[in-house]
Amino acid sequence: MGKVFFDLGMSLDGYVAGPNARPGNPIGDGGPKLHTWMYRTAAFAELIGGAPTDRPATEDDALIRRTIERSGATVMGRNMFDEGEVGWPEDAPFRHQVFVVTNRAREPWARKGGTTFHFVTDGIDSALAQAKHAAGDKDVRIAGGADIVRQYLAAGLIDEGNLHVAPVLLGAGVRLFDGLPDPGAVKLTSPFAHLRFQIS
Amino acid sequence: MGKVFFDLGMSLDGYVAGPNARPGNPIGDGGPKLHTWMYRTAAFAELIGGAPTDRPATEDDALIRRTIERSGATVMGRNMFDEGEVGWPEDAPFRHQVFVVTNRAREPWARKGGTTFHFVTDGIDSALAQAKHAAGDKDVRIAGGADIVRQYLAAGLIDEGNLHVAPVLLGAGVRLFDGLPDPGAVKLTSPFAHLRFQIS
Repeated sequence: MGKVFFDLGMSLDGYVAGPNARPGNPIGDGGPKLHTWMYRTAAFAELIGGAPTDRPATEDDALIRRTIERSGATVMGRNMFDEGEVGWPEDAPFRHQVFVVTNRAREPWARKGGTTFHFVTDGIDSALAQAKHAAGDKDVRIAGGADIVRQYLAAGLIDEGNLHVAPVLLGAGVRLFDGLPDPGAVKLTSPFAHLRFQIS
Repeated sequence: MGKVFFDLGMSLDGYVAGPNARPGNPIGDGGPKLHTWMYRTAAFAELIGGAPTDRPATEDDALIRRTIERSGATVMGRNMFDEGEVGWPEDAPFRHQVFVVTNRAREPWARKGGTTFHFVTDGIDSALAQAKHAAGDKDVRIAGGADIVRQYLAAGLIDEGNLHVAPVLLGAGVRLFDGLPDPGAVKLTSPFAHLRFQIS
């Protein structure tokens, strides 16, 4: 059986979105700075554009391809869906089953390219169970936003976290780890990460 | 001329000290978890104990030795000194000139092993100028706490930051980057850091 993981960009001061996030400004003010490493890659261009590009195969590109490849299904929160619904291309950048945790019932919505959005109104456990079934042997990605990731973290349902720490201070916005009911209960295993940055 | 740098341990949720920091509990509740990688090293044992140990020469050990070697003088805030004064051994773990930013005048205090504490009552610019003079060609370390590091960051006087990110969530305490007057003015240069951790 696969793992349940998240994979998010975060500023050095801990924000995964800037202030004023909403449809049309989905990552908030300054939020796109958290993802510039990804935007540059061929894998990202292909995912959004739906066609190969001539961008080079870099380490960053390989990292994103591995994340796409391992993901057999996606779970996301209602806000992320609302923000993405107006921004994603018709050929939505998932190409597998996506389970949206929401309190608004809606028929499944199939998009070009293999993505179908399912609207789950009976909670995070149900959404995850459906995603695991759809993913088969592959992993399930908890895509975001921060609130839904925190709900799964607090419930002890996430096996692995990936954070891409950006060399930027946002100073405001949405912090991934703020508001966990019991932060000490989240036991993390990894080496210490030694970061060095120059300041101008 | 040398660089001005800081070198701090930080939790994954951004804290450099836990809550309730005070003399006798200098890094706050849970704070020692931020530094376990360092406590294990031969370099740290030598610095505190004043004598060689039989601990192995690891990568972490080499990293700490480079930080010690590059440091020609140290600047710290009054709280860090107050907390350390009761905790450091008589043979204080600096072995160079230390400049304490404070509003309480006091005669220089020479310790065994080469450390002298100087109490600077005319501000951060003066403390840094004195430290640079004492360091000669070596670098100046802004040791902490968070408040004095932020003051130097806000003044644009720090060239390099080092953060050792611990696989732990503290959930409360002192965040390094909270309270900067203009976070966007701090321009950082470094690659994105890709962190992965397992959760149990």
